[in-house]
Amino acid sequence: MAHNPLAPEWLSSPADANTLTDGLWPSSARRTDDGAITIGGVSAGDLAAQFGTPLYVIDETDARTRAAQLRAAFDAEFARIGTTVRVYYAAKAFLSTEVARWMVEAGLNIDVCSGGELAVALAAGVAPGRIGFHGNNKSRAEINDATRVGVGTIIIDSPVEIERVAEAAGRHGMVQNVRLRVNSGVHAHTHEFLATSHEDQKFGVVFEDAPALVAAIRAQPSLNFLGLHCHIGSQIFGVDGFAESASRLLSLQADLLAGGPVPELNLGGGFGIAYTSVDDPSPVADLAAALADIVAAECARRGIPVPVIAIEPGRVIIGPAGVTLYEVGTTKPVRIGENTRLYVSVDGGMSDNARPALYGAEYSVRIADRVSEAAPALVRVAGKHCESGDIVVDADYLPGDVAPGDLLMVPATGAYCWSLASNYNYVGRPAVVAVADGEARVIVRGETIDDLLARDAGVPRSAHEVSTSSTGEVSTSSTGEVSTSSTGEAGSTGEAGSTGAAGSTNDMKETTR
Amino acid sequence: MAHNPLAPEWLSSPADANTLTDGLWPSSARRTDDGAITIGGVSAGDLAAQFGTPLYVIDETDARTRAAQLRAAFDAEFARIGTTVRVYYAAKAFLSTEVARWMVEAGLNIDVCSGGELAVALAAGVAPGRIGFHGNNKSRAEINDATRVGVGTIIIDSPVEIERVAEAAGRHGMVQNVRLRVNSGVHAHTHEFLATSHEDQKFGVVFEDAPALVAAIRAQPSLNFLGLHCHIGSQIFGVDGFAESASRLLSLQADLLAGGPVPELNLGGGFGIAYTSVDDPSPVADLAAALADIVAAECARRGIPVPVIAIEPGRVIIGPAGVTLYEVGTTKPVRIGENTRLYVSVDGGMSDNARPALYGAEYSVRIADRVSEAAPALVRVAGKHCESGDIVVDADYLPGDVAPGDLLMVPATGAYCWSLASNYNYVGRPAVVAVADGEARVIVRGETIDDLLARDAGVPRSAHEVSTSSTGEVSTSSTGEVSTSSTGEAGSTGEAGSTGAAGSTNDMKETTR
Repeated sequence: MAHNPLAPEWLSSPADANTLTDGLWPSSARRTDDGAITIGGVSAGDLAAQFGTPLYVIDETDARTRAAQLRAAFDAEFARIGTTVRVYYAAKAFLSTEVARWMVEAGLNIDVCSGGELAVALAAGVAPGRIGFHGNNKSRAEINDATRVGVGTIIIDSPVEIERVAEAAGRHGMVQNVRLRVNSGVHAHTHEFLATSHEDQKFGVVFEDAPALVAAIRAQPSLNFLGLHCHIGSQIFGVDGFAESASRLLSLQADLLAGGPVPELNLGGGFGIAYTSVDDPSPVADLAAALADIVAAECARRGIPVPVIAIEPGRVIIGPAGVTLYEVGTTKPVRIGENTRLYVSVDGGMSDNARPALYGAEYSVRIADRVSEAAPALVRVAGKHCESGDIVVDADYLPGDVAPGDLLMVPATGAYCWSLASNYNYVGRPAVVAVADGEARVIVRGETIDDLLARDAGVPRSAHEVSTSSTGEVSTSSTGEVSTSSTGEAGSTGEAGSTGAAGSTNDMKETTR
Repeated sequence: MAHNPLAPEWLSSPADANTLTDGLWPSSARRTDDGAITIGGVSAGDLAAQFGTPLYVIDETDARTRAAQLRAAFDAEFARIGTTVRVYYAAKAFLSTEVARWMVEAGLNIDVCSGGELAVALAAGVAPGRIGFHGNNKSRAEINDATRVGVGTIIIDSPVEIERVAEAAGRHGMVQNVRLRVNSGVHAHTHEFLATSHEDQKFGVVFEDAPALVAAIRAQPSLNFLGLHCHIGSQIFGVDGFAESASRLLSLQADLLAGGPVPELNLGGGFGIAYTSVDDPSPVADLAAALADIVAAECARRGIPVPVIAIEPGRVIIGPAGVTLYEVGTTKPVRIGENTRLYVSVDGGMSDNARPALYGAEYSVRIADRVSEAAPALVRVAGKHCESGDIVVDADYLPGDVAPGDLLMVPATGAYCWSLASNYNYVGRPAVVAVADGEARVIVRGETIDDLLARDAGVPRSAHEVSTSSTGEVSTSSTGEVSTSSTGEAGSTGEAGSTGAAGSTNDMKETTR
């Protein structure tokens, strides 16, 4: 089939636009005999019927398995070079108490970067010693809480934090393990990496300043220096950036060993996943093997002991385990010259997935409740928000008979979708459902309009039973003039609730989906 | 002073980095004798002390005045050409019940684009007849609610909606005023506009399809056709794009008049505001005069009556009325070659203002609680989120002695900041405070960690008193090994709450600011 010039270069029309492309979907995703996609043994139609749409769905078994397999792969490869690995789940990708427990049960630690994320991890029952605390601008209250509860490590991100953390740890009579985040000058994304002498970014201390800052840490009796930390980017497909960064960090490590022990080295996260059919991230096992080889070689070259290695994967664990389920509301073909793009509008959008608008991120999509023999059509899945950049899937092919009422499933939405979600246009954030073994259960409840109005100080608290029928009649004269005679009344607070009709709350709730 | 090559071309070092640049700040913004910025007569320091930071602050008088002056300007200019204007406040820019009431009291109508926004407007007591309902993918429930409560107009955005709205209106036994959103092919932003035959976007119906769709609307007894609608873009500084679009729409209008009345024409919104010292949007009065001239000329040329005009400003009313107040936590000079950029990290970021990350939007900044004679330094104000793109102000100059503890104020944050806010990194959204006549009051409460955990199904509801001290001791051995002996326990649900120490909830709340 000829390439549709409205599609990006990499996207060609598939032979079958119903196929669940390998590597893009949670491992339990299947098409059943009736054509529906099931995740964790629960069909798209059942999920929509039970929980509504949009809906975040996480394959629990898949998430747990990815965590456990990643840990096992790194354990094995680093055992080979005579050391161990601490794996921290990067909670910023997705965090709820349930998911924190899955990660801990898979043997992972938890990396948090705010007091809020710390509170969720603690509410999940995560042992504080398993928590690493990040942040370029931790508040004094956050530092105080982190030291008080005894988080395992605090990653110091700027010179001023040395004293702040030391002071807080001293106040609580404890010795705080700390890492120092260093700007290695390496920045990586997908297939490229950039290595400079200095990075123009907010995180980490200047490379050349590290020895003096480590000395300052070592001089604080309430701090214990664990080692260096660096993080080179996100959605990285290869190992070259990690190799360059590890080399730079280990040269610094060698210098620091002259002044005392440096037991660990934290190489950060950023391991990439597939969002489209042409994405080809390195398998985690290959990454583990390559990183182990690099670390072993660089340590040998410098004649220094191999440190304990820490890594901070998030997306690579939770991203592929999640999908988002939408319902199609409208379709609209747009002809540009000889070619057509079919706009397919769904009942969510940039409020539940900001990544396309934020990063130009690409996604894939399939009809979730049926298969179709219709010829594939180039589609753009748009959201329902009042913004032209509100795109869910910029370009993919779907059967050309995609129509209102169809359920769509977008894979690889487990990371950075819920966590970046907004209430733009007062659209409530969808529920998060975990599926496993044919069962689905809510792990985070969805938002109702009551939730969204709960912080509005202008709503009488009894007025959640907002009347939608007591606020006046509208005239519809033949000239099309809208009556505005009730203007004066519109400013009077509180009337809306006073005559609220029973049942209207439920009616309005429907509209937030 | 030499241009710092790390700054954008347009930004030069100011003589005084304390000045509140004309046109950027709420009209009540002042420096008092002690150097503090006051808004509505309330000083930055008092706001921070009373409500904490970050904080959204809206100058109530300024917002009301901009709404009233805009309406007066358009009323006067369109009276001059023999017609009237309906001004709809675009609620997507910022909506709370309080602000909705300000707009109605200034004589404006309200434009909503979701069931959620409709619910807020109704909760504010806005007469349904004053509400316009937008959306490229309104759900059936939204259409049902909108017709049931009697919204003044529904803007039909795709062919399928004609029948959906007609059916819903018929069910409620009423005649629904509708507009038809047409893709004019004109897209404008700031100083440029693009005019094509067809636009590659989700909104509106194809221009050439409009006559047939208007006929279909007119054939529905439960619909009353008010006229066409188009919206050409956002943050537009000139009138050329509006002129081209109005010309195209009025040519269509002339054709449609053959089939029946077309009483109105809605030209949409998109009027731009200044975010930086070099932004030069057309004054609202000039825009009104130019639009009136265009409409009059185009109608005269075609020999058609001048319709009632509707417009939908949002940002231009609420944007300049709002500022965001932050506290500096850390500063970090980054040297790139011979030049230095000072990173200034504040206690908010992309969660309270997504526009820099979403659109590369530029902002300005000033120290809010003092003036300083220190030489201006090029700064980048970064947020506290775990993302390198978490920038609040990409580039401006501040006194070079800016330091932790300083309060910073970012002007022109009244629109699309709160409405696009997220809870990324479990950071609670700040409160919104209205200031006027020396008084400040909360119009939207800020979020606490309790709010953020309230929908997490894995938190025992009594466990909001989450213990942060009951989850085990962390060892801090001299080798830097972190004890993970409590791993097995971390997976057990609900234990965290059972031994919660009194007072820990309050401690953790601090960390979300």
